[in-house]
Amino acid sequence: MTAEQTAVAAHPSREEQVLLRIEKARARKPKIREERVTLAHGAGGKATQTLVEAVFVDAFRNPALESLDDGALVDVNGGRMVFTTDSYVVSPLFFPGGDIGDLAVNGTVNDLAVCGARPLYLSAGFILEEGFPIADLRRITASMAAAAARAGVQIVTGDTKVVQRGSGDGCYVTTSGVGVLDRELTLGVLSVRPGDAVIVSGPIGEHGITIMIARGELDIEADLTSDTAAIHELVAALLDAVPVHMLRDATRGGVATVLNEVAQAAGTAIVVEESAVPVRPIVNGACELLGLDPLYVACEGRFVAVVDGSYADTAVEVLRRHPLGEGAAVVGRVEADPAGLVLLKTTFGGTRIVDMLVGDPLPRIC
Amino acid sequence: MTAEQTAVAAHPSREEQVLLRIEKARARKPKIREERVTLAHGAGGKATQTLVEAVFVDAFRNPALESLDDGALVDVNGGRMVFTTDSYVVSPLFFPGGDIGDLAVNGTVNDLAVCGARPLYLSAGFILEEGFPIADLRRITASMAAAAARAGVQIVTGDTKVVQRGSGDGCYVTTSGVGVLDRELTLGVLSVRPGDAVIVSGPIGEHGITIMIARGELDIEADLTSDTAAIHELVAALLDAVPVHMLRDATRGGVATVLNEVAQAAGTAIVVEESAVPVRPIVNGACELLGLDPLYVACEGRFVAVVDGSYADTAVEVLRRHPLGEGAAVVGRVEADPAGLVLLKTTFGGTRIVDMLVGDPLPRIC
Repeated sequence: MTAEQTAVAAHPSREEQVLLRIEKARARKPKIREERVTLAHGAGGKATQTLVEAVFVDAFRNPALESLDDGALVDVNGGRMVFTTDSYVVSPLFFPGGDIGDLAVNGTVNDLAVCGARPLYLSAGFILEEGFPIADLRRITASMAAAAARAGVQIVTGDTKVVQRGSGDGCYVTTSGVGVLDRELTLGVLSVRPGDAVIVSGPIGEHGITIMIARGELDIEADLTSDTAAIHELVAALLDAVPVHMLRDATRGGVATVLNEVAQAAGTAIVVEESAVPVRPIVNGACELLGLDPLYVACEGRFVAVVDGSYADTAVEVLRRHPLGEGAAVVGRVEADPAGLVLLKTTFGGTRIVDMLVGDPLPRIC
Repeated sequence: MTAEQTAVAAHPSREEQVLLRIEKARARKPKIREERVTLAHGAGGKATQTLVEAVFVDAFRNPALESLDDGALVDVNGGRMVFTTDSYVVSPLFFPGGDIGDLAVNGTVNDLAVCGARPLYLSAGFILEEGFPIADLRRITASMAAAAARAGVQIVTGDTKVVQRGSGDGCYVTTSGVGVLDRELTLGVLSVRPGDAVIVSGPIGEHGITIMIARGELDIEADLTSDTAAIHELVAALLDAVPVHMLRDATRGGVATVLNEVAQAAGTAIVVEESAVPVRPIVNGACELLGLDPLYVACEGRFVAVVDGSYADTAVEVLRRHPLGEGAAVVGRVEADPAGLVLLKTTFGGTRIVDMLVGDPLPRIC
């Protein structure tokens, strides 16, 4: 292999990455064992992955879909564009720090952002249950409008359906988004390689725990709000500053699920230092009460970045300059072995495997 | 006014049209009287219009949204693009001639088509109820894949959420779509003017009546299937052949609602000849049993076109050459007065006003 060929192998193009990932997914040939949909199929973890690969990818097959990124890279008007969608079924609809409205806007903006796109336009589809208060709908749309204004996007098209009382749960929102790529990027799990640093953009698990507390499932009161926010500016600052190999927002399934997806697809190990993971004490405390690991709890304004290891400190510095990145930290490193696994070095000096999320301890978190 | 100015007034540009429509909508200042969402708010008629204008447009305000077309015209990569979304909550999920899957693909393809766009990419967001059979999900995705292949579009991105048993109704699907404009068009209600011909692309009401029969709400058996189909080719053939002033697919609220929207926005009258409206006898019979007017019953593969009056015959000829347009017919004419009203010349020689749909005689039709 010449030096040039080695470089190509280490940094495959977007097309090579997609093809490699499709090959890998096909080789896995996941089978779905359940006969009926369970809550776990919506949790973003192992069951969701199986459902997506065994049902949706199997039916729809095309390179843009099969890359299984947060958004699809497509060609429009002679340029590239990212297209993404997310449905929101969070319960309760209103919670400290946000509601289903700004969650739906920020979530789709963030899916575009972590694909390296500048978010431009959003659509919004509402499924309302008969009897839903118009005043609540106004609160939700006002919150969506404010979030859109903050993120610099326009909600340009929409739809409303109403289902009979008992066939819904107040209000479900599906947002889709389009954004454009202003930069040349080689973002993607297959750019990930041993020696890279793994960074999270701030303290994790705050959205998930806020929702659990808002549901009254925990007999505690806490000064905690959802981290829901549009992270496109923070992402852009990072992309401008350092060579980023992979970006993903840590929503359903949390940071642990993102890291597992990356380790599996990249065929590398990821070693995380537990003591380096930023978690607020209140989140840690709530997780202990609930028997949860914060690594699996959803964030709605945090992302995981894998960057060239020699730029780790610069990356954290750049992130910390932005209000949404104040708590950014290097949490681990990409290693060659054991391929496909995520290992956690615990504060007690042990090492354990961090698997994908199994089951759904936190249903309807977004 | 010079001749040129007159021509401009008769054929306002897309921008002028949008601004005029925004002015008109703002002048109307619709107020929503209900405190809670009713099924009528999802029926596509008067209540939906009020909800959209009083809540959504009021919150999100931007020219692309305020034009209130089936899709939004936006700029991407230096060109124009149409972006649209629709949520599907049809009940039952499977019916003669289709299911929620092909309905969701065809519906979004058609929204792009009637904006004059060539459909390219679709997204799909699923909201599944816990316990939904995986086999049914496979049937739906297979049907979506087949519909996408027929329409020449790719489903490139998606999302799945699961809600607890009792918080949904099996499966809701939200599709969004993007398409590009290959032609220069002045499509839009403000291009509509007295002397124009009003055309429907085929027999109306078949989707709505099929759903009613499938629900067992009518004690009849009928050899009737939904008209769900992707009409983009039919639309393209028409656009290539004649000067089209307005296009809209006649879904919720039926042909009557489309015509009312056009008459209101264009400030013209529309006079429809009842005897010229293509309706199959079985649809007419079912409508009589149900006390419905076929003009209000949803189609999912038919559109209303307003074309330059002198091209009416050519337009019908072109449509009839395509299998989906075999039953196309000129059903009426645009007149100057009474502005904003739709009149029906009945087969008995009378004339009556056809108002917008009030209430929801056919909930969850799409």
